[in-house]
Amino acid sequence: MQFTSEQRLDDGVLEREFTLNEIPGILWTPGSASAPAPLILLGHPGGLHKMYPRLAARARHSAAQGFAAATIELPGSGDRPRSAVAEQARTDLRRALEAGEPVSNEIVDRLVLPLVEKAVPEWQAALNALLSLPEIGGPVGYSGGVMAIGIRLAVVEPRISAAVLFAGSFVPAAMFEEARQVTIPLHVLLQWDDEGNDRQAALDLFDAFGSKEKTLHANLGGHTGVPQFAGDAAAQFLTRHLK
Amino acid sequence: MQFTSEQRLDDGVLEREFTLNEIPGILWTPGSASAPAPLILLGHPGGLHKMYPRLAARARHSAAQGFAAATIELPGSGDRPRSAVAEQARTDLRRALEAGEPVSNEIVDRLVLPLVEKAVPEWQAALNALLSLPEIGGPVGYSGGVMAIGIRLAVVEPRISAAVLFAGSFVPAAMFEEARQVTIPLHVLLQWDDEGNDRQAALDLFDAFGSKEKTLHANLGGHTGVPQFAGDAAAQFLTRHLK
Repeated sequence: MQFTSEQRLDDGVLEREFTLNEIPGILWTPGSASAPAPLILLGHPGGLHKMYPRLAARARHSAAQGFAAATIELPGSGDRPRSAVAEQARTDLRRALEAGEPVSNEIVDRLVLPLVEKAVPEWQAALNALLSLPEIGGPVGYSGGVMAIGIRLAVVEPRISAAVLFAGSFVPAAMFEEARQVTIPLHVLLQWDDEGNDRQAALDLFDAFGSKEKTLHANLGGHTGVPQFAGDAAAQFLTRHLK
Repeated sequence: MQFTSEQRLDDGVLEREFTLNEIPGILWTPGSASAPAPLILLGHPGGLHKMYPRLAARARHSAAQGFAAATIELPGSGDRPRSAVAEQARTDLRRALEAGEPVSNEIVDRLVLPLVEKAVPEWQAALNALLSLPEIGGPVGYSGGVMAIGIRLAVVEPRISAAVLFAGSFVPAAMFEEARQVTIPLHVLLQWDDEGNDRQAALDLFDAFGSKEKTLHANLGGHTGVPQFAGDAAAQFLTRHLK
């Protein structure tokens, strides 16, 4: 893990860009931390530059509660090499959406399953590197998008002890079975009017999760319209489980 | 409104029983209030004696945030005169549930619609009396059970400016139309595994509410298993809207 830039934000948070095996990432740590900070991995749909304002806002909110926060670029997004298979799947997805057709399981599988296979080990490698820093301790939470990545991480990565999942992306049918194996506390955000999201599938997925503590927070509005109070509630959930 | 008993609880909260037009009720006011307190009307399924421990816990939680809280007995419950129609409907409901049969709309209508017709004006009379007390100001919220009573109150009573509704009771089909007329901020609690509750109907009802701000919090567990953190979140919602 190489740090490539460093800046102190106006609220004292230290923001550092890094690369790890050529994957770009960003780490935010609280301005004043006496002990190693617990860590939140910030999930997102891909495209660090485009997502930066929202990611930084979430990270600063977390830092104010004493958390470190980190994110990495997804395979095939941002400045990372494109995959021909994923690009074709995205094209097919866009075509289906524009035609107002239902998105087939086959397209979702082609789009999401290879992404999960590739991204999850990268998140785990990032976690190894981040936890080796003296300023970061544990426990670790995952918070954010690409539901299928969050599900797989929750199943395979025992160092993640709670997750905020954002029901706003396509989930391959095979992941429903995996959802039953999730046992960590979950906080699921569902935007009730999310145009690109199948509400019933999100409810079915919530039902499938094996966790003993799971909460669904549904709010009015579209995909990017998560209200401030819902973000606050998700932060409270992580504070309750990670501190 | 006649106060019939008065006691100071160990946290300083003043608990007073009262009767209003022969309807028993309880009022809790914060121990130390400099200004008139905003008021939360505590809904419940009927039976003040049986419900007392849970109501008092909710009231004391609210009082700690500076709220007054009050409740009244429902028509046909507790020490109030029984209605032959309602008793028959309850018997028919119990019979259907015990037989594992679906509960017909006709039974729900017989059980709930007369209750709403009678209870809502009583809540409004209680509100008149409570708001005439110098220690109670406004704004006013409604929080708790019998969903259909909460819906009707939210529609007809302009002094109620936010409501926490508990999706755990039967809602007559006609109330779905009424739900579209609700415009105040809503916070809906749904116990995902509530044996006596139709989950899909609760989701449909949430969808129907006309409010621009509405949030659904679904948690694992049965009807009485609302987790502490979900109660806290509902309290935060009321604080956000009433203070």
